[in-house]
Amino acid sequence: MKELHYQPNRIARGLVSRRTSTIGLLIPDVANPFFSEMARGVEDAAIAKGYSVLLCNSDWNPEREQMYIELLKGRWVDGIVVVGSRSQASAIEASVGDTPLVIVDRRSSEFKWSVWTDNCQGAVLAVEHLLAMGCTNIVHIAGPNDSPSAQERRKGYEQAMSRAGLAGKVYEGDFRFASGFHIATMILEGSERPDGIFAANDLMAIGALQAAAKLGIEVPRDVAVVGYDNIPTAGYVSPSLTTIEQPSYEMGASAFELLFEQLTDDSVQGVRKAKFEPRLVVRHSSVKKRSSE
Amino acid sequence: MKELHYQPNRIARGLVSRRTSTIGLLIPDVANPFFSEMARGVEDAAIAKGYSVLLCNSDWNPEREQMYIELLKGRWVDGIVVVGSRSQASAIEASVGDTPLVIVDRRSSEFKWSVWTDNCQGAVLAVEHLLAMGCTNIVHIAGPNDSPSAQERRKGYEQAMSRAGLAGKVYEGDFRFASGFHIATMILEGSERPDGIFAANDLMAIGALQAAAKLGIEVPRDVAVVGYDNIPTAGYVSPSLTTIEQPSYEMGASAFELLFEQLTDDSVQGVRKAKFEPRLVVRHSSVKKRSSE
Repeated sequence: MKELHYQPNRIARGLVSRRTSTIGLLIPDVANPFFSEMARGVEDAAIAKGYSVLLCNSDWNPEREQMYIELLKGRWVDGIVVVGSRSQASAIEASVGDTPLVIVDRRSSEFKWSVWTDNCQGAVLAVEHLLAMGCTNIVHIAGPNDSPSAQERRKGYEQAMSRAGLAGKVYEGDFRFASGFHIATMILEGSERPDGIFAANDLMAIGALQAAAKLGIEVPRDVAVVGYDNIPTAGYVSPSLTTIEQPSYEMGASAFELLFEQLTDDSVQGVRKAKFEPRLVVRHSSVKKRSSE
Repeated sequence: MKELHYQPNRIARGLVSRRTSTIGLLIPDVANPFFSEMARGVEDAAIAKGYSVLLCNSDWNPEREQMYIELLKGRWVDGIVVVGSRSQASAIEASVGDTPLVIVDRRSSEFKWSVWTDNCQGAVLAVEHLLAMGCTNIVHIAGPNDSPSAQERRKGYEQAMSRAGLAGKVYEGDFRFASGFHIATMILEGSERPDGIFAANDLMAIGALQAAAKLGIEVPRDVAVVGYDNIPTAGYVSPSLTTIEQPSYEMGASAFELLFEQLTDDSVQGVRKAKFEPRLVVRHSSVKKRSSE
């Protein structure tokens, strides 16, 4: 017979003090370096203040996200950081209840405590860069329609294109490498090949680079590619990937700091937000070499 | 005044049944794709059987690992999967106690329930490939000395070199990109430049590729590079990285299956092991183009 080992003392202590020095962190895809870097940022900041982190991976699935929020609350965490959710703000707030919450990577208007970047502005930077590089037929490989950050990046793409008097074309991906690869293959094999691709994250952009390489289409000469996030891999691929940087590690650390403020300062009321600026990082996937023609 | 939301019913249910359908997963570095892919493998297998996963990141730190094992036990997990630990087997077993345990990426002789690959054999494959490519001065960028898998890969390197009648040279890294970059820079700038580098994981090998690129040293013409793990990035870097594959996702799924067997079959006694074979994946970082000289 097996006996499981439980620790009534630790739990009892938690019940009395109502503090367990443990927080929950919910991310959508642990295999995406953007989120795993952010998780390191949360964890390093938490450990520095004597907190431990229980990490859950929702796999972009709103039901799994609800399930994990319930699970974390049932495991006595002092507070929860939710990253990059696709759920409605009201659904997240309802399931989190009174547990202190910081939301990361969602528009600031929806939540009181949030860490975010302006995704629409970031997408405008990406498209304006492609326009400046001489592209005129720029398509967008978007994230999933029900992702708020994907919606905002798509909005920025459409704004910048319409300001330039250009019609655009949007294809819906799912933020994973394979969808970028398959969509780009379809686009690049089509009759109206674009001269610019803006992908809503780096994994899909790297998928597009691989698709071009496989088809013998040269990047950036035949088609320029820009991603979003600036994951470490973006600097190592060939050609290196131009992208919009979000400071994932710093955003994670900042999310813990906001949670810590809620946990330790009872006088704190109202609203706290940390906004980070998206930044264009120019590499080789978008800068066409000047020819001597 | 804030009120935290606890869920006595859920906990009470857990106390009665002594089962919570939650497992703990401890990995050493969430930002290393080898481990995040493995975490996805554990989680997909667990979710398919109705289990949830609480993930903890030990940052290669044995004290943090002990702390998280205690934390997970205190949060009523049914069992624990520990990946890639540097701790002594006896220390892990002591802190895990009677909680069902599966260990991944450690030699099978140390633990009853384990998922592993033969790291020594994998390293031999890597070195024999470099020898077959004509390299005669092969150095090893090792993982940290207190990591059992790093020790075994080093042993495999030394065996294959000595069998070939060659002396080797080992430099200790820490399994992270930056250490591969710095060690390779030092080696390649030195007076006795090697013609082959075998790094104990892909992140350090990719660091070595970047160091060579920065120094204007051509891979594989001037120096061939082989890594270990076969993370997705290995296929995207330039030149693409020859490496030893460990099937991380399948190893994770298999670890959950072994844990599930312990949790659901009281008749199970003794020892269960799942062994995966390391496999050489040849790409461009090691295959010198035949010149016509």
